[in-house]
Amino acid sequence: MRGADLLLRSLAESGVEICFANPGTSEMHLVAALDAAPSIRPVLTLHENVASGAADGWGRMTGRPASTLLHLGPGLANALSNLHNAKRAATPIVNIVGEHASYHVANDPPLGSDIAALARTVSAWVQTVPTARAAGDSARAAVAAALGPPGAIATLIVPSDAAWNEVVEEERGVDLRGTATEAMAEAQRRAPPGGAVDAAGVDGVARALASGEPTMLLLGGRAMAHGAVELAARVAAHTGAQLCCTSFTAVSHRGAGSVAVERLPYFPEAVAARLAAVRHLVLVDAPPPVAFFAYPDMSTVLLPASCDVQSLSDGADDVSAALDALVQATGARDAEPSRVARAIPPAASGPITSAAFAQTLAAVLPDGAIVCDEAITNRFPALVATAGARPHDWCCVTGGSLGTGLPMSFGAALAAPGRRVINLQADGSAMYTPQALWSLAREGVDVTTVILANRRYRILDFELQRLGLTSVARGRPLTDLTNPSINFVQLAESLGVPAEQVDSTEALARAMQRSFAEPGPRLIVAMMVD
Amino acid sequence: MRGADLLLRSLAESGVEICFANPGTSEMHLVAALDAAPSIRPVLTLHENVASGAADGWGRMTGRPASTLLHLGPGLANALSNLHNAKRAATPIVNIVGEHASYHVANDPPLGSDIAALARTVSAWVQTVPTARAAGDSARAAVAAALGPPGAIATLIVPSDAAWNEVVEEERGVDLRGTATEAMAEAQRRAPPGGAVDAAGVDGVARALASGEPTMLLLGGRAMAHGAVELAARVAAHTGAQLCCTSFTAVSHRGAGSVAVERLPYFPEAVAARLAAVRHLVLVDAPPPVAFFAYPDMSTVLLPASCDVQSLSDGADDVSAALDALVQATGARDAEPSRVARAIPPAASGPITSAAFAQTLAAVLPDGAIVCDEAITNRFPALVATAGARPHDWCCVTGGSLGTGLPMSFGAALAAPGRRVINLQADGSAMYTPQALWSLAREGVDVTTVILANRRYRILDFELQRLGLTSVARGRPLTDLTNPSINFVQLAESLGVPAEQVDSTEALARAMQRSFAEPGPRLIVAMMVD
Repeated sequence: MRGADLLLRSLAESGVEICFANPGTSEMHLVAALDAAPSIRPVLTLHENVASGAADGWGRMTGRPASTLLHLGPGLANALSNLHNAKRAATPIVNIVGEHASYHVANDPPLGSDIAALARTVSAWVQTVPTARAAGDSARAAVAAALGPPGAIATLIVPSDAAWNEVVEEERGVDLRGTATEAMAEAQRRAPPGGAVDAAGVDGVARALASGEPTMLLLGGRAMAHGAVELAARVAAHTGAQLCCTSFTAVSHRGAGSVAVERLPYFPEAVAARLAAVRHLVLVDAPPPVAFFAYPDMSTVLLPASCDVQSLSDGADDVSAALDALVQATGARDAEPSRVARAIPPAASGPITSAAFAQTLAAVLPDGAIVCDEAITNRFPALVATAGARPHDWCCVTGGSLGTGLPMSFGAALAAPGRRVINLQADGSAMYTPQALWSLAREGVDVTTVILANRRYRILDFELQRLGLTSVARGRPLTDLTNPSINFVQLAESLGVPAEQVDSTEALARAMQRSFAEPGPRLIVAMMVD
Repeated sequence: MRGADLLLRSLAESGVEICFANPGTSEMHLVAALDAAPSIRPVLTLHENVASGAADGWGRMTGRPASTLLHLGPGLANALSNLHNAKRAATPIVNIVGEHASYHVANDPPLGSDIAALARTVSAWVQTVPTARAAGDSARAAVAAALGPPGAIATLIVPSDAAWNEVVEEERGVDLRGTATEAMAEAQRRAPPGGAVDAAGVDGVARALASGEPTMLLLGGRAMAHGAVELAARVAAHTGAQLCCTSFTAVSHRGAGSVAVERLPYFPEAVAARLAAVRHLVLVDAPPPVAFFAYPDMSTVLLPASCDVQSLSDGADDVSAALDALVQATGARDAEPSRVARAIPPAASGPITSAAFAQTLAAVLPDGAIVCDEAITNRFPALVATAGARPHDWCCVTGGSLGTGLPMSFGAALAAPGRRVINLQADGSAMYTPQALWSLAREGVDVTTVILANRRYRILDFELQRLGLTSVARGRPLTDLTNPSINFVQLAESLGVPAEQVDSTEALARAMQRSFAEPGPRLIVAMMVD
């Protein structure tokens, strides 16, 4: 058995089920080793950022790490921007990155680069596999690091000699102990770390909640999981606290009957206005609110100076246990969470404005849908309109790096067969990872991509206006996506995804509903008029 | 005047003429500042790796740095793989990367990341612009660092407050001294660093050349420039030395009448065989030969132990001056370089094999063409067949990172108007940066892209075979690009580039010749049968 076989088998036995791959010459033994790990499904992507974005989508849906297989430094570099989003989402991912043979690195061959330096920018854990026989330990450690908590990116750098060298026979038993079921069960037992709760912290939060002063519970990360958000909502219902979540959540469970959680806005002045009267802010696996971007003559401090901030739990804690303790401390056990009333709007009609698109989406959104939201300037109306729609999950661009919508929807669909994934995809952002369309077609996943075609980087037009840079002349074409216009129908069909273009909300609704009724991917270009 | 204006004006005055841009919110003042630097042409790309690959193509053709404008860490990350190739080509490039406002970085906003760490993996020079009024100095230092020699990547990280803050009025005169012409002339004077030549080194090389033992001059980088290669060829002609170049040169001047330079092969065993009898190896701006990849049970040492290696000149030296001194020392002043005889094959006929494609290319290649070669497994036959074709330049994938062909051809075409650029583009590699097609259409550049469609990652099939991994089952689909087949005609047309598919060499020749006669980009899909 080679190191590559040991590595892949150990990943499989640690619960890794899928590998989004774009390998090269230095990874051929790892490719061959898929035969030694039949429970890992290999999935080819044509670009590494599709692999990493898909791993993010998979990890958000399952809570378990997908793996990626990447070719040396440039392959990892190509994957970084979606890994950035995954890092901000605390998604568990295990990257397998090939490296030159250990004895060849010092020769500085043309494809040599500092892989570890690249990996460290997004990874909580980076290790170069030292030898073939250590590959099993390295793989297990990577999975453990990825599971956290908090979920994180673990990067295994695999020198090609560590992959192709034979593991000495007698060590097999040691390296391949345990079974997949046992290993995964152990990892899951470990995931909530023993339920140790900071009692003093809980008491402090309880005192704030009892103060009668305006108090907000701000949820993020794992506090948005079904059980956790339910507990937080009981506290809010019982104490009168405001229940909010961060603007860009990894996954939120929404729609009719879901726990009512208000979402913080995007622009910093709006966040500051929302928080102006808050006296106590309680963070539950959420970072303190910060401006997404700074602007001239505008504070990036979004909380009033009078606000006291407490953290009930962060990503390394047992979030549910902390919330449970808070339920006890506040006597909220029997409180009834505020739930979202079903409110499905009628179908819209006429041209596709941002508002009409949002209404259409809310009208047709199917039960159990997964929305992957890279709608950018069309995001906020869509969130508002779908609040009381049929129950669904909503995934955001957590790190602000564009090019995640298509890949994330791909990974989410593979992770959740039987559910329809709807990718709300701004047209400018779609062009960072159009290669994902090919993978959607190849795997035949149930993803409906709606291209929100306003033929420009509209957010940048907004920002120029916000900054008073309206007289910009020579730079203005940098926000324009016409000349030529992108024909997304042709683009999708060139990569195997059936597609159509619609110019009215009626046609949009029909096209979406048809796509939900048919298996496989479809792309719909919504020609926006605003 | 803002820091952004000062920065752009200073870049312009240092000779930067073009900016390949994919900006975001944090770069809006830099976009606005293009109005303050009218000599810098802004060029939008839909993906950052198109921007960096285009900058590489521009820099290879002009010897001067193009700039890129990138959005924070993820934008730079997206650009890295083509920057890797540019680094290996010693191409001068100035990256302008936006950063959060200096006072906002510590808040760790969602798009925050370690930009400098990313930049250092490819850059010889990295600086965070400290203040608005320092932006001019930073810009000038970046251009100087990029020009080298050797040419290098310089990365300017620009906090948004350094961009938007006003430069105090009275400092204008200081920061904006000089004129564009003066600044560029100064930079070019500086580029060859004073002609200081290591006389002892030259003597050592001359002794080796006089030894009568097999001696090879190995050229790379700037030794491949017209004047330098001519000098090296005189030495070779006079002394009987072998004249070779590295396998992947940034630019080489080829075809009928050019200096005859043998190219080292790609696979390490072939390189080792070629070098086996060489007793003295003289490096002229070339690294010592190393294996591109290591293989099990195969040495990565490509030189015989008996070979003595001397460096006549490296990238930091005045390569031409060193070669000139060698011409003097060897008495080769009047030697006549060996030149390539004109040998244009007849048009091929029948299905498009690798050999027939190469013959077709050689038959139709127009005078003065620039070939951007990402042909991968079809590369070597094409190089052989075109040796005696009409004079042309040939640009290689210097760092082995795929996705460079389309962007590099875009940048080269902008740098060399009036010349036809021919992009030999493997189909798998084309899918790393298909967004470049849109920029080709938008700018209307004279680029003929030939997609060499063998519908698989053929190099990986080769490598599996070389490694004896022919029984690979579950990983085999990772080398396959059918299911679905990519329709490159539709893909190109979706992004505004007229395209056609050909199934015979006759049709291929006609399609290429038609494209040469018409302005603007065209894509031709050559359906390969091998």
